[in-house]
Amino acid sequence: MFSQISILGVGLLGASLAMAVRKHCCASTINVWARKKTTLDRCAEEVWCDQVFEDVQESVRGSNLVIICTPVDSISGLMADISSHLNEGAIVTDVGSVKENICTSSREIFKNSKGVFIGAHPMAGSEKSGLENAQCNLFEGKTCVVTPDEFTCLDALKKLKDFWRKLNMDVHEFSASEHDRAVAYFSHLPHIISSALSESLLAQPIKWRNVSGNGLKDTTRIAAGDPRLWEQICMMNSENLVLAIENTEKSLAKVKKSIQSKNNEDLFSFLKDGSKFRKSI
Amino acid sequence: MFSQISILGVGLLGASLAMAVRKHCCASTINVWARKKTTLDRCAEEVWCDQVFEDVQESVRGSNLVIICTPVDSISGLMADISSHLNEGAIVTDVGSVKENICTSSREIFKNSKGVFIGAHPMAGSEKSGLENAQCNLFEGKTCVVTPDEFTCLDALKKLKDFWRKLNMDVHEFSASEHDRAVAYFSHLPHIISSALSESLLAQPIKWRNVSGNGLKDTTRIAAGDPRLWEQICMMNSENLVLAIENTEKSLAKVKKSIQSKNNEDLFSFLKDGSKFRKSI
Repeated sequence: MFSQISILGVGLLGASLAMAVRKHCCASTINVWARKKTTLDRCAEEVWCDQVFEDVQESVRGSNLVIICTPVDSISGLMADISSHLNEGAIVTDVGSVKENICTSSREIFKNSKGVFIGAHPMAGSEKSGLENAQCNLFEGKTCVVTPDEFTCLDALKKLKDFWRKLNMDVHEFSASEHDRAVAYFSHLPHIISSALSESLLAQPIKWRNVSGNGLKDTTRIAAGDPRLWEQICMMNSENLVLAIENTEKSLAKVKKSIQSKNNEDLFSFLKDGSKFRKSI
Repeated sequence: MFSQISILGVGLLGASLAMAVRKHCCASTINVWARKKTTLDRCAEEVWCDQVFEDVQESVRGSNLVIICTPVDSISGLMADISSHLNEGAIVTDVGSVKENICTSSREIFKNSKGVFIGAHPMAGSEKSGLENAQCNLFEGKTCVVTPDEFTCLDALKKLKDFWRKLNMDVHEFSASEHDRAVAYFSHLPHIISSALSESLLAQPIKWRNVSGNGLKDTTRIAAGDPRLWEQICMMNSENLVLAIENTEKSLAKVKKSIQSKNNEDLFSFLKDGSKFRKSI
């Protein structure tokens, strides 16, 4: 499908992506770049890695697709590093979970580049992080959002969507700005709510943990995620996220009032709406 | 273990309990009482039901253990109905998820009874309800809280704990009042938080539902539960639950403030505490 794909960064997402690219035969050659020499040495022995590079500019030379899989706050810097070293028509994409900053900065960075940038957000992950937890089926059946703008080359967009679909992902198009609002409510907010519930229980008597059932375990599962990673994600999408938190704060105030005032019908109707939404996703 | 056990009410919990009693050979005879004749007719054909009764007083006669598995707001009424029809030393217990009201009313009701009441709360359930979703392994590996008071006969308490342990449950003793505080925070609160998140997303653009990932699905799974059942549970434990909600509201206000004020270290430390709690349960 592509003769050569470069994967920059091999944490959970980058390494899982390389595995999936190999499995689904999306590229003859897979180039890998990582910051740490020890990581590269490890990758060099893997079946999903054909060439390793210490120099990021070298790593993208001759590739038709470059996927930046590093933490969100380093993506723009890497785009700037590689933009003048790309082949004609090379597609650059990323896996960052916040898109507006990245897509806005890409316009300036790729203005004189031979390559084109189209943002992407494959919504796969795990509460476990790092190369050692990578798995080739991480993306199977999951959603991938691509975020073109009005100047995006349609041929490149089609190729990129076909690529994600080849990994069995369900691909949707959003503008970068709508993507960030949508994930603030549907992805980052659940993390904050789950963490707030967890944090609020930390100071309660230890004995009470014996009554933790599956309900609590499910509701707080994502709170176990990497705090450093989520701190970055939340801060990059802070304005949208604050609005989303306030929206849930209103819901919480509403249900509290119905309980305090012993208004059974209000409480029932609230719980029914919650149930209705859950059944719709 | 018991020659005869009566199970009053055969919804998800009652029917699953009858199945588990049969599987683990806890009784030679299993009596079943239910309000609806059609339910009794159905039970009469099941391997986990030996005798069915339309009269609740008849259904407990000669039993050594009676387990009330009806909705929480009907438990005290049934205790009053059966208390003067019990065998000498018969143990009466229940599966209600709120205990203080029930245990307090049991003192008066069982004062002149030949039987003894000890509250219980086997913490098993599902977002699915009803006899048709019953399963014999619903209780396996789950927690069961028993709520004796200072006058509880220790022999009866031991028998009851042994019974729940025979179903492979992890048995803990709490006073009824501490049980209700503990479940307010560790069981009812997660339900309200999960519902509030769900309810707050119902009015967002439908297209955004495409970015729902596993995180949102896990965090809102219990919100899909039966609204009528949870309305009852929440109202029966309303005072404790309001305090628990306020505790999480404080956590939410704290994390919102750290995001608004771009205080990365506060946000990181908050997420770390949330992660720490989750890993402890």
